[in-house]
Formats: sequence, structure tokens, C-alpha cells
Amino acid sequence: MDKVVSSPAAAIEDIADGSSIGIAGFGVAHRFPSSLVTALHERAVKGLTVYCNGLGQPGHPTAHLLADGGQIAHLVTCFSARPGVVSEAERQIRSGQMTLEMVPQGTLVERMRAGGAGLAAIYTPVAVGTAIAEGKDVRYFDGRPYVLERAITTDFALIRAYRADRMGNLQFRGGSRNFNVSFAKAARVAIAEVDEIVAVGELSPEEIDLPGVFVARVVRSTVQMDVKNLPMRPSRPADSAREYFGKRALTRAEIARRTARLLPDGAVVNLGAGLPNLVSNHIGDRSVVLHSENGILNYGAIITGADFDPDIHDASGYFVQVRPGASFFDSVTSFEIARSGRLDAVVLGAYQVGANGDLANWAAPGMTGGGIGGAMDLAVGARRVIIMLEHTDSKGHPKLVERCDYPLTAPGCVDVVVTDLALLTRNGGGFRLDEIARGFTVEEVLSLTAMPVTVADRVGVMQENW
Amino acid sequence: MDKVVSSPAAAIEDIADGSSIGIAGFGVAHRFPSSLVTALHERAVKGLTVYCNGLGQPGHPTAHLLADGGQIAHLVTCFSARPGVVSEAERQIRSGQMTLEMVPQGTLVERMRAGGAGLAAIYTPVAVGTAIAEGKDVRYFDGRPYVLERAITTDFALIRAYRADRMGNLQFRGGSRNFNVSFAKAARVAIAEVDEIVAVGELSPEEIDLPGVFVARVVRSTVQMDVKNLPMRPSRPADSAREYFGKRALTRAEIARRTARLLPDGAVVNLGAGLPNLVSNHIGDRSVVLHSENGILNYGAIITGADFDPDIHDASGYFVQVRPGASFFDSVTSFEIARSGRLDAVVLGAYQVGANGDLANWAAPGMTGGGIGGAMDLAVGARRVIIMLEHTDSKGHPKLVERCDYPLTAPGCVDVVVTDLALLTRNGGGFRLDEIARGFTVEEVLSLTAMPVTVADRVGVMQENW
Repeated sequence: MDKVVSSPAAAIEDIADGSSIGIAGFGVAHRFPSSLVTALHERAVKGLTVYCNGLGQPGHPTAHLLADGGQIAHLVTCFSARPGVVSEAERQIRSGQMTLEMVPQGTLVERMRAGGAGLAAIYTPVAVGTAIAEGKDVRYFDGRPYVLERAITTDFALIRAYRADRMGNLQFRGGSRNFNVSFAKAARVAIAEVDEIVAVGELSPEEIDLPGVFVARVVRSTVQMDVKNLPMRPSRPADSAREYFGKRALTRAEIARRTARLLPDGAVVNLGAGLPNLVSNHIGDRSVVLHSENGILNYGAIITGADFDPDIHDASGYFVQVRPGASFFDSVTSFEIARSGRLDAVVLGAYQVGANGDLANWAAPGMTGGGIGGAMDLAVGARRVIIMLEHTDSKGHPKLVERCDYPLTAPGCVDVVVTDLALLTRNGGGFRLDEIARGFTVEEVLSLTAMPVTVADRVGVMQENW
Repeated sequence: MDKVVSSPAAAIEDIADGSSIGIAGFGVAHRFPSSLVTALHERAVKGLTVYCNGLGQPGHPTAHLLADGGQIAHLVTCFSARPGVVSEAERQIRSGQMTLEMVPQGTLVERMRAGGAGLAAIYTPVAVGTAIAEGKDVRYFDGRPYVLERAITTDFALIRAYRADRMGNLQFRGGSRNFNVSFAKAARVAIAEVDEIVAVGELSPEEIDLPGVFVARVVRSTVQMDVKNLPMRPSRPADSAREYFGKRALTRAEIARRTARLLPDGAVVNLGAGLPNLVSNHIGDRSVVLHSENGILNYGAIITGADFDPDIHDASGYFVQVRPGASFFDSVTSFEIARSGRLDAVVLGAYQVGANGDLANWAAPGMTGGGIGGAMDLAVGARRVIIMLEHTDSKGHPKLVERCDYPLTAPGCVDVVVTDLALLTRNGGGFRLDEIARGFTVEEVLSLTAMPVTVADRVGVMQENW
């Protein structure tokens, strides 16, 4: 019954060519099963089917499997590409060396959890009306469409936890449960690397987050997290702003500040990557409860100094404060909250918003795959979807369009749009221009807006409403 | 954001005639939401749809809703009847006052959890080939049949936890999470009664078992658990034995002792109600990991003295020891373990076993409904199904039959049968008589066996193999 293995290499020695493997981990560089992935790279097995949130940026552990190994034959992931970067994954997919299945993050963990629960399939509302649902069974229940998603089981899971006992009982720290729980359940053989291994009985029954019955092997981590480049900082400064007609629009921080005021006290809110992340800095001590896909409820402002906990970060990888009443859980629970309508609002970025409320924010033309993340799950489940974006793209093309020509995230879901020039509210079939940035005219804003909008009787000034 | 309500009556004041309510709780008298159920009884609303594990015996809180109230119009439950007792529930169902839907325990919590996760339906292998699947869609995935089960959502859930903070974050004790987690998720309004309410921040993020986002109201319990008749003791003494041909067969304890030896070291095993419970007393310090549906892994012997923890009991309601390496979780996780093949063996009682391995153990002819409990989930999921029973029923009719005429629990699932006279092993299409009790002849045993069996070349003596 002693599940402790002597080394990462020994822990993965039966992973063979063609094995299917779930590789857990979330964020940019935090608590991946790096020791096990490194051993898998050294073992040089080929033809793997890999399930993961994303392969990480070059230099991150999961990227090893691609970079000079070409070990992956089929990749199932939430993030295959980022705008402006042609990744190694994209190169291998385009060359036919690797095939790709994109999957929404909540659907991925739910399919894994279903496999680990002995179920065959689930009907989920997520991705209906998008390319992800193409070719899948769609069925109506109580008048609403749901897509059939098959359960996933794998040969192996590589996961990372904080502590284990010798029976394989695992304890996690902070918001680091993420995919580890569901991926372990889905696997025939779940292999956990941990910071510390203790005797049986040293973890109390209450401290155990994942019972050992789900874990086949435990090994001590040999690759420690590289924190020298942490914390991550936003790629664009919060005080940067675009210019339109030679005039300065709202800064990114100002867009966030206006958006924060849309969130009522007591609201439970998820903030997507990019501009939405900045909203957490404008909550102050108001009772807005922030939700993160990796499994934190009630976090606070982004920490950019040295005073961070590496296991407490938001879904974008920013280290954050926790507020009194915070709780930690795994990604399955996190998306239960999202899909079941318990998020009062979701704030997301976008490539395009259509006049009918369609949202496109996961792939641009020319990308191989894209970056779905949790956006589809969040957009479908939230009571109110708020979109933050710059009013035009880098070439000056409007992002508010009559009809999205980018792949959809969810049809007809958008309720409010906040840009660096305007605030628009869904009103019946279309959007109404309610506020504009100080110094601009309604005509100027409309000239950069490619969807038909109605104009409020009294158009407000954004800066007066934060 | 303060979710604390002043009294149980105030907490349920908007439950109206015709509301649907999940009432959590598990076991005989432990930690039901008794204060809330008592208030609901006093409120005298009618026409309720109630989801629960069972309505409990007379005198237990959920029984109030039936006893003189007649408040329930539709009952969805795992236990509606027990052998030899015509309950108030049965009377109301027979009279047409109340309608009944029987549901396997694992399916009930999984359907609740699906509702709470925003899913519409799931495909489960449980109950295929039984009366429970009649009229439902059955679909094959990878060559195996699964039945479509709809998600459940309710207007309200009444749950009970140990501690809450004022944001509704909940902490449970011991094995008492059971149905509380999934029922809360399924409800539009989950109402929790707790022993203690603390300030926000007093529960650390790691101590919170159910985030407050799933809980609408919190109230302090006013009805405390009645422990004066605890612990529960087996209804029949372990040293009692039947007689056949004027000779004493194995006692109940001896059947358990023989069965315990079938469980290899390191096995993960679930013990059903009745005879199987007794097996836990014969594990000693061997590394057999016992699993209980309410959410405990690695418990030990039954405690019959005063030295028990009221929150640590097996699925039959017996207080048990916990062993080093034990873990606690909810019923959803518990049935994930069962359905996904992680139980090396399940030991169940039975009304009948058929020659083809069919198992019937949840309803007898003449019952209204029956007592499914977790048996269907366990029988379908386990690697090995071991049945313990007395060789004949109280009228002397054989329980090992050519073909079951009682409702099936699962078709073709039984691997080993241990009775007070014999041990039989599934061997190809039928069973082989491998051992008999000392003092009896093969011919005597066969004369009480109504299924065709083969006889091993060397029939052993049961008493020599424990």
C-alpha cells in the first residue's frame, strides 16, 4: 500500500508510446508537475495523446514535450495559440505532425470528472452555437439546447500537490487544486509529485483534499518552481491609452475603474484575462466577491511586489490577495459555480461583439486553434456578461460589428460593453450608447462603431460614473 | 451579504405549497436538518416534492412531514420501505395521497450535482437492466449500455453543517457531508442549519468545505441530535445462527469472518447493510480500506460502547473507528469511487441470487418501492461483488435460485456468494460450490439450493478458511 516511488523517472517508467496522459497545472509557471514532465521528456516516448489547459510558454515545463521532442500526436487543450505568436504547437499542427482538439476549460474538467465518475457522457449548455459543438449531438431539455460531451478517461495523469502521505492521500495549498483533482480521477494511473511526503496518519482526514484511492503513485518533486521572474506583470501598462482623432481615450485602468462601478455590492463576479484583470484593483473594500476558474472565491487586488503567495493567483496567473471569507476549491467546483448561474456578472475581453450580442473572443482568423480558456463556460452561465475592450483593433477596425466574423464564444450573450470610448447597454435587440469618454462626441464614437446602435436620450460621461 | 437568519421559521418562511425541496441527511438519526424540518412541519405547507435518502423511522425528523402532516405530494427517495414494516410512506403511496420515484443513491446525488453544475443530463451505467431504467433512454457508448438520467434542480435545500460564517461558507465534521453538498448545489435557495456561526474570516479558506456562493441562508440549529438511544446496535445478535437439518449453521459473525478472508490486503471495499456490516469487525489491523457511501474511506470496527463520534458512522448508521490515513468527503465523491471501478470488492446482502449472477436485494414482492440505497451503484461499479446471505429465507425457501423473481439490483454482477452453509464462486456461466460449513454434506447444501451449480473437485470446509 506504500505508493511512494523513488524518482520521477521511476514514477513514469510504464508510460509508453501512444499513452494518453492528462497533465494538470494552471497559470503561467505555478505548480506544474514539472519533475514528471521533465522525466517524460527524457524518456522520449512518442505518439502521446495529451490533455492539458495549455502547453505553456517556451521555457515552461509542458512546452518541453513539444519543443525538441515532438512527443505529442494529439493535443486536447483550452489554449493552443495566442495572438501575435506562432507557437511551436501551431507549427506542429500546421505541419500535420500533431492533431488538435480545442475544448472549453469547464467542459474539459467536467469531461474528465465524468470519466473519473464512471459516467459515459454529459449534456452541457456550453459551446452550443459555436464551432466547438459542430458535429456533436445537440438535444433540447426544457426548451434549451445542450451539447453531448463524452467523458474522458486516460491511461495516466501527472499532477502536483503540496503534501502526500504514503497511502497517496493528497493535500493542496491555496488555489492550486485546479485540474489536479479531475485529471487524477479520470486516469487509470494518477501520479502525483509533491513538495513533502509524510507518514500515514500525519494528514488528518479533514486535511485530505483528494483521497488516496484516486492516486496510484507519489514522488517528491525534484524541479522547484522558478520564481525569479515572478510575479508576472501586465504586458501593457495600466496607465497606457489609445488616441482617437488625436485625443487621448480612457486608459486601461480607467476602463477598469468604470467597469468596477457596474458591479453591485454583494455580486459574485469573474474577471477574464487582459483588461478585466485590472478591475480587481478598483474593488477596494466593497463586498464584491471575485471568482477565479482555478478555484478561488473572494480574492482581492493584484500583487506586483514580492509579498505574494505562489499558490494564490487568479486565472490569468497574477498573484492576488485573499479577503476574509475566501475559499479554495478545484476547477470542477469553479465551473459548477459558473454554469449554474451563480455568477452575477462575468467581465471578459473580446475580439468582436455583434449587434445581436454575439461574443467572439477566443480565436482570430489565421490562428490554429486559439485560446478558449473558461470564456465559453463563463459567457453561457453568468447572469450578466460585461465586455471590456478597446473600441477598435490595432489597425483601427471597429470591434463592435454588425455581425461577428471571428469564431463565436457564445451567441447573444453580451449585456454591457465598456470601451476606452463608450459604454453601451443591450436594449431589446441591439445596443444603446449610454456614455462616452470625456472630450469625445457621440458622432466620433459612432464613426468608430460598425454596429447599429441607438443613442440614449441623455448620453452620460464615463468619467463621471466611477 | 450577511446570510444569517434569526430562526428556523424565518429561514423557511418562503417555502410555499408545491415547492420542491431537497432534504439532506444520512443515517438513522445523525445530523439531519431537524430544526428546519420541524419548522417546515409547523408551517404546514402542502403538496411538496421532497428529495431525500429516506424519510427515516418514526420519531426521526423527516418522518414528521408524513406522520400527521401529509405534506408531501411527490417523494423521490432511495428508501421507501423496509422488509416487514408497512410504513406511513407506503400507506400514503398506496392510498394515492403521495406518488413515489425510487432512485439509486449514487444516481440521486449525481443528478443533484448535475443540476447544481448547470448540466441537463448524464449517462450512467447504474440501473441498466432494472426496473429503474424502464422508460428511460438507454444508449451504448463503447459497447456498453448507459441510461440517461436528468439533472435535478429544486426550489430549496435543507442541509446541516457543523459551522458557518456569516457569508454562508460551511464546514462539516467527520463523515457528515453526505448529501448536503450536492443538494445545496441543486437548490435555488439552500438553507443551512449549523451548530455554530462565526464571523467572516474565522473559517480559513482551507477549512471551508462548501463555499458560501452555494448557500443562501444560515441559521443556528435549535433541535439537537437525540443521542440517548445511540449507538445503534445490530437488530440480530452476531452470534445467532440458523439451523438446517437440526444442525447449527454458521453464525452471522462466522459468515462475516469467512467473508473477511476473501478481501486481499490493500483492497478497497464497501460493506452493505446487514450481514456485510459485520465484516468490519474481522479486518483487524490488515490493510483493507473500507469505504462508506456517506463519505468515509478507511474506517474500522463498529463501536457499540459510549466512545463514539456522532459524525463518524458507516452507511448503515453504525458508529465506527477511523484508521490512520482515513479521509472524509461527500456522497458525490463516494460514488465516483464506486462507479469508476476503484472498489476492489463490494459486499452486499441479497434477497435472491440467480444462476446467471443476477442480484436482487432492494425490493420484495408486495413492497411499495423498496430500499435501493447505494446497492445498484456499488454492484455495477465494483471489480468483485460478494454476496452474504442466509442460505434460505425465513420460510425455508432457497435464496440461490435459477432465476430471480424479485426486482433486480443489477444483472449478472455476482462473483462470490457466502452463506451460512456454503461458499460458491462464479465460474463461467454459473456458480461452483467450493466450500461448505462443517457438519453438513454437499447433498444437504444442494437440497437447499435452487440453482444448478457445479461442485468443486475438492469441496473445502468454510471454518478452515478464516
